[in-house]
Amino acid sequence: MDRRKIILDCDPGQDDAIAILLAGRHPRLELLGITVVAGNQTLDKTLKNALHVTQHLGLEVPVYAGASRPLVRETQATAGEIHGESGLDGPVFAPLAKKAEEQHGVWYLIETLMASQGDITLVSCGPMTNIALAMRLEPKITSKIKELVFMGGAYGLGNVTPAAEFNFYCDPESARIVLNSGCPMTMMGLDLTAQALCTWETVQRMKKASNKAAELFCDTMSFYLEREGKQYGMQGGPLHDPACIAYLIDPACIKTKPMYVQVDTVQGMNYGRSVCDYYEVMKKKPNVNVAVTLDAPRFWDLVENGIRLYDEERER
Amino acid sequence: MDRRKIILDCDPGQDDAIAILLAGRHPRLELLGITVVAGNQTLDKTLKNALHVTQHLGLEVPVYAGASRPLVRETQATAGEIHGESGLDGPVFAPLAKKAEEQHGVWYLIETLMASQGDITLVSCGPMTNIALAMRLEPKITSKIKELVFMGGAYGLGNVTPAAEFNFYCDPESARIVLNSGCPMTMMGLDLTAQALCTWETVQRMKKASNKAAELFCDTMSFYLEREGKQYGMQGGPLHDPACIAYLIDPACIKTKPMYVQVDTVQGMNYGRSVCDYYEVMKKKPNVNVAVTLDAPRFWDLVENGIRLYDEERER
Amino acid sequence: MDRRKIILDCDPGQDDAIAILLAGRHPRLELLGITVVAGNQTLDKTLKNALHVTQHLGLEVPVYAGASRPLVRETQATAGEIHGESGLDGPVFAPLAKKAEEQHGVWYLIETLMASQGDITLVSCGPMTNIALAMRLEPKITSKIKELVFMGGAYGLGNVTPAAEFNFYCDPESARIVLNSGCPMTMMGLDLTAQALCTWETVQRMKKASNKAAELFCDTMSFYLEREGKQYGMQGGPLHDPACIAYLIDPACIKTKPMYVQVDTVQGMNYGRSVCDYYEVMKKKPNVNVAVTLDAPRFWDLVENGIRLYDEERER
Amino acid sequence: MDRRKIILDCDPGQDDAIAILLAGRHPRLELLGITVVAGNQTLDKTLKNALHVTQHLGLEVPVYAGASRPLVRETQATAGEIHGESGLDGPVFAPLAKKAEEQHGVWYLIETLMASQGDITLVSCGPMTNIALAMRLEPKITSKIKELVFMGGAYGLGNVTPAAEFNFYCDPESARIVLNSGCPMTMMGLDLTAQALCTWETVQRMKKASNKAAELFCDTMSFYLEREGKQYGMQGGPLHDPACIAYLIDPACIKTKPMYVQVDTVQGMNYGRSVCDYYEVMKKKPNVNVAVTLDAPRFWDLVENGIRLYDEERER
Repeated sequence: MDRRKIILDCDPGQDDAIAILLAGRHPRLELLGITVVAGNQTLDKTLKNALHVTQHLGLEVPVYAGASRPLVRETQATAGEIHGESGLDGPVFAPLAKKAEEQHGVWYLIETLMASQGDITLVSCGPMTNIALAMRLEPKITSKIKELVFMGGAYGLGNVTPAAEFNFYCDPESARIVLNSGCPMTMMGLDLTAQALCTWETVQRMKKASNKAAELFCDTMSFYLEREGKQYGMQGGPLHDPACIAYLIDPACIKTKPMYVQVDTVQGMNYGRSVCDYYEVMKKKPNVNVAVTLDAPRFWDLVENGIRLYDEERER
Repeated sequence: MDRRKIILDCDPGQDDAIAILLAGRHPRLELLGITVVAGNQTLDKTLKNALHVTQHLGLEVPVYAGASRPLVRETQATAGEIHGESGLDGPVFAPLAKKAEEQHGVWYLIETLMASQGDITLVSCGPMTNIALAMRLEPKITSKIKELVFMGGAYGLGNVTPAAEFNFYCDPESARIVLNSGCPMTMMGLDLTAQALCTWETVQRMKKASNKAAELFCDTMSFYLEREGKQYGMQGGPLHDPACIAYLIDPACIKTKPMYVQVDTVQGMNYGRSVCDYYEVMKKKPNVNVAVTLDAPRFWDLVENGIRLYDEERER
Repeated sequence: MDRRKIILDCDPGQDDAIAILLAGRHPRLELLGITVVAGNQTLDKTLKNALHVTQHLGLEVPVYAGASRPLVRETQATAGEIHGESGLDGPVFAPLAKKAEEQHGVWYLIETLMASQGDITLVSCGPMTNIALAMRLEPKITSKIKELVFMGGAYGLGNVTPAAEFNFYCDPESARIVLNSGCPMTMMGLDLTAQALCTWETVQRMKKASNKAAELFCDTMSFYLEREGKQYGMQGGPLHDPACIAYLIDPACIKTKPMYVQVDTVQGMNYGRSVCDYYEVMKKKPNVNVAVTLDAPRFWDLVENGIRLYDEERER
Repeated sequence: MDRRKIILDCDPGQDDAIAILLAGRHPRLELLGITVVAGNQTLDKTLKNALHVTQHLGLEVPVYAGASRPLVRETQATAGEIHGESGLDGPVFAPLAKKAEEQHGVWYLIETLMASQGDITLVSCGPMTNIALAMRLEPKITSKIKELVFMGGAYGLGNVTPAAEFNFYCDPESARIVLNSGCPMTMMGLDLTAQALCTWETVQRMKKASNKAAELFCDTMSFYLEREGKQYGMQGGPLHDPACIAYLIDPACIKTKPMYVQVDTVQGMNYGRSVCDYYEVMKKKPNVNVAVTLDAPRFWDLVENGIRLYDEERER
């Protein structure tokens, strides 16, 4: 079976780290590159985190720095209260030897997509700034994207405001550009990721794999669970970004529904809200496959299997 | 036990008719007056429907015409596709003998509230135009309202647009004025009324009461169920407005949660959306008790009992 | 010649006082009533000022209190820095004997217009709250208004924000309602009133009339000139509201141009701006005659003549 | 005297062509490169026009293609009714031999600015898409820009809508990004360019130079005057973009006033309006030197001299 080529655009972030972990070794995926964007923390931090994670896991994927601020909005939202001062608090990493590539992440996206046969899937786990910039600099890339699978938005309640999900809120105008681009898209919104609830039991289960991937999972998730508990009073924490990778590895574990989705970019109380026409009252052509239901047991098996892929790494 | 004094502001509408039915004879309520507003249909029709319903049920409550168009928006939304050409299609009424009062509904609200001891509860089952106008003409009425119980809004998905519920969408600016008024408020949004799902079984059950209230219930609901089925593909229809009356008769059948609620009045894709801070991420003082959970069996018993109150009407 | 019947809606205010002065005695006008609204100051103050001015001038016109706050916006703008603590600083009035009418100003507008032959001209010199409320309570009054002549808006720069003129900014939603009403309308915006610049020389000129009207003119304008100088660094102060009365007395002194005018009600940087399609780029049917050029010498003669009408008051 | 280094970002366009003409040979300026953007016409056309103009005038400046669509807005405004089907109707050019550079215009801007000593002035004569993209891809360029002189905006009336000037309207979000960037900026808005009115007399005057620059001037302006006359009923046409070059050659011919300027990006009736705080009512630190008064005779002398610089071209 062909491996599915992907580029992962992210802002690690604890859950981004797990997404990298799941994508980095899976036999059904070929992780071509990682582009980094400001989001959960500032770009210097999210870039460093991406390098740390790939170094720790022994992944030889190139890492590119992208946009350090959102497309239009002046103030940048970060999520230090959830992800910690570094953006990836929890694990203690070895000193950083790995370096980011020289090329700008946005330029890497454009060149790689334009040179491709249209067989690359983009995975977006952060604010969509890099992708939107690439689309505006070179509109032709749109037809080169096989599929865009993203974590962002919600048809129910938001998390960073009552109306908006964090990634969309960080850069609503970029989200709007991407959602109107005409790409095939699949959305993992809060509605879905609320069903991927990581608990202390989950941490205990993954710990048993006792390899470096398990270590990364447990260190990041322990920190994350504590913070989510404080912030939302929840018993577990939604594992947002890995849902994108799970969907690519095993689409059957996630049920989707096509909807017409738009992003509110008026800077009022709904700034950054993804308006999803669940009931089709607008009679518009759907532009996004929106994830609705997660087969949670199957998802957690997939995560555990992903971690265990790092067992035999010496042999590879 | 004292009866709770209420004024019912509505735009009948099938579900408004059932709200009148439930409020008109209940020993725990004293229905002082009905003010009518444009909404489910134009004012001339909703007014006529209010008169028909009260005449049919033998209720001697005075009926007042209020605002014929929304406060700010130029175009008026109606819901003929749900409620029919008359706004209350389904029942066939006797010729109309009952007449509306001369006084303007808004003026009636102001005078009645200002003359009161602060013991009147307002029930709002339509767009909030009348109430907002009254509050702007005489700001002092706000402190005279014991409680405002309204059907409107949603913290989940909207019904008339992906974002907005019908009553709020009809007059977002009025909803905003009322929600910012400082009154004690309880909100029956779509989240709650989706749990009050009337089905063909419900119609069969109420039919057995075989009095004129049962007749009204069955004739209106039969029409409504057919239309809701066509519009939303649902198996039943949410009985929106009667939830307000149920809450006043038996608060225990509805669980509420205090939230900070605002209405988006920017005329974009979220026009008329009630933004509810369910997770308290804004750290603002709650202004509305938002209904969250309905004890559905208890609710339907209450409806049946309400219908049966019309059994012994000759003796009264 | 028939006298033109007018109702004056205002928020005195120094320039409102001069508008009352000019309208109160002119043989071509019949001032039926004055309705008062919050604006330059809070309603209690603007009401008191209207009573003081009419008492001082010996005008027997009835005065009605209207709306005490804007239609939709929560915060009320006032202009104490221009008009002083009382809203009409400058003159010292005799103790107030005159009383406001019992009836609400909005109700007076509705009843008077509905009972009329369609021969009443409305003059609006403040925020349009009263008029918008009346239009929404009784939409039929629109066809009863012979003409609405208002001071508000600008096609050039604003005065209270870079974009908005004070009266429109105080209540943008009401202005929008009125401008979309379909009434015949003539607008005296800042573009026009900037040409009615009252200077110290003007004050000296009017002083010579040495009657109680001259006294009122000089006392109010002296205070106003000082404040305008401080606020805008101008050598004179635009005499805003009296332009409406001048237009009614002598239309030839003001050149107008029909334009399509709308009010921006999005609560951003253009909140309250009157967008005037001067160059007809929108190809829309004009809804307002916008005053463009003032014949200033003729205007000041008219003001002086208006003041001198109070000379022979004992004979009247 | 040192020549002032400039990069010209434009969307030719008749008036852009004259800006290139004036900048291309002037001894006080060194035109490093031209970047092209969609605006007056689509990018393929504006690019071709820029190549034609520089080829016709014998300018060896490199030309780069930039963004083909605005940053956020979906629909692209063009101005074919003013500039013609080609975007530069009027002149008949020799077949095009000159080619655009391979590099993307935005990347050229970033690389050139980053490699500079901070001595490059940017001139923006079109929608600000290229500049905004460059600022977001590499925020550090902001401190490398010596000055940004742009044609765009207005504190008075707009031209493409009642509120907005064409360049700003084409890409309001980009204009907002640039205006908030902190660069030293000078704005040539419609208020200024309305004073640079080219008439048939002007065309006659320039014709006398009878060189290829005069030929270009007369051919483009003849077409433009005819179209402006049709569209706005004016006797002449404002020569928008050349004002930027005139300002750089001879600042004394244009009087400016520092103002706080923002761009309205809410997609309503003021979308794209430059809100200029002329009277400093917001008490904010000015961010733009706004051109207010043009010394028109001096300007036209400068234009004629600029044309005559092409007389001796064989000797150069």
